[in-house]
Amino acid sequence: MDVEQRLRELGFSLPEPVAPSYRYDAVVRRGEQIFVSGQLPWRDGAIGVTGLIGADLTTEQGVFAAQLCGLQALAQVKQALGRLDGMVELGAVTVYVASAPTYHEQARVADGASELFIAALGAAGRHSRVAVGVASLPRNAAVEVALTGVVVGSRD
Amino acid sequence: MDVEQRLRELGFSLPEPVAPSYRYDAVVRRGEQIFVSGQLPWRDGAIGVTGLIGADLTTEQGVFAAQLCGLQALAQVKQALGRLDGMVELGAVTVYVASAPTYHEQARVADGASELFIAALGAAGRHSRVAVGVASLPRNAAVEVALTGVVVGSRD
Amino acid sequence: MDVEQRLRELGFSLPEPVAPSYRYDAVVRRGEQIFVSGQLPWRDGAIGVTGLIGADLTTEQGVFAAQLCGLQALAQVKQALGRLDGMVELGAVTVYVASAPTYHEQARVADGASELFIAALGAAGRHSRVAVGVASLPRNAAVEVALTGVVVGSRD
Repeated sequence: MDVEQRLRELGFSLPEPVAPSYRYDAVVRRGEQIFVSGQLPWRDGAIGVTGLIGADLTTEQGVFAAQLCGLQALAQVKQALGRLDGMVELGAVTVYVASAPTYHEQARVADGASELFIAALGAAGRHSRVAVGVASLPRNAAVEVALTGVVVGSRD
Repeated sequence: MDVEQRLRELGFSLPEPVAPSYRYDAVVRRGEQIFVSGQLPWRDGAIGVTGLIGADLTTEQGVFAAQLCGLQALAQVKQALGRLDGMVELGAVTVYVASAPTYHEQARVADGASELFIAALGAAGRHSRVAVGVASLPRNAAVEVALTGVVVGSRD
Repeated sequence: MDVEQRLRELGFSLPEPVAPSYRYDAVVRRGEQIFVSGQLPWRDGAIGVTGLIGADLTTEQGVFAAQLCGLQALAQVKQALGRLDGMVELGAVTVYVASAPTYHEQARVADGASELFIAALGAAGRHSRVAVGVASLPRNAAVEVALTGVVVGSRD
């Protein structure tokens, strides 16, 4: 069963990768390393979840936002590398959660992305993680998820 | 004198590494690279320093929190690599400081971790650094510290 | 035309690199990797742009701050590697924008640094990016910019 089949079994499907509107690349490769820009929770051409978690939004809405960010990240990697299967091993995942100062469940929100990566990629999807609460995010997004990793086979 | 002896001379001792409660790994190795997840200021099974620096907490309490995070990070690296001596060279250290909007001494707080890494690891502990003030952190922690580096000898 | 000539044509000049006042290095190399610490918007020996964007400062002032951070980053890389031309390829750029909770134009601010890197370095300056709004920054800086990349030729 390939990555996209596993996602479909979980009820997810890869979205179209959204092209950056600003002066950066969604994915950059340098040697064996791959860097994926901070991905927002796009859904049907708009940001699917906006606002501050702990003020405007619940943890559950944050988890959904993190899933959308994670799907966008996988779609970007697929576009950059041609396919997802056997292509990439994740390293570090950073999850920025737009948070009220009194909100402290960023790790639960971040699991929305982490569980998706592990379900989709298996051992190659395991990762270190940073989850922090930030003051605000571009486009009023509730969550932003960035990745680094290595391209498999590039070390040979 | 080995890493843990140097820490003891400074009055520190390595804590037990705290296993992640969420869906990530404390440490991930990919090729020569090592990624250490954001570490919180654990102490005796609880978060040792909670709250916002500049509102609930002083800079000195922040420094102490950063030391606890740094010790936790070293304990995680030791668990992952078997020992600390001669195993790892730090690259980038990121220090997230839960901050009131009017608080601007994040660099002093971050030095709590930076000085610890250099004292423990010598030249191998030297690192680039990011210190920023965030809105809030998981478990109401005052500080979170993440690391990247390389595993020594893995480039041969 | 070399990097500094291209910058001059755009009206920029490389500042003196500011030595860290705290216990980290401005630039660290580990194997092929290069890590540049979070750079603040220094100008004539002081932070050139202070305050929260969306409260005290406009987006345009944020863009200017991001340019100052980017210039400082390039100056640090030049000091570490001896020259800029043909020496480095950028990987990930992280732009921390001190933001009011209602401010969401961090991507426009971050373009101040991104456009500078691409103008200066061409294809080698292309990068993935994270832009987030943080609660506050060291020295009340409006923006902080950190970089990772690879040193060209170091993979041979």
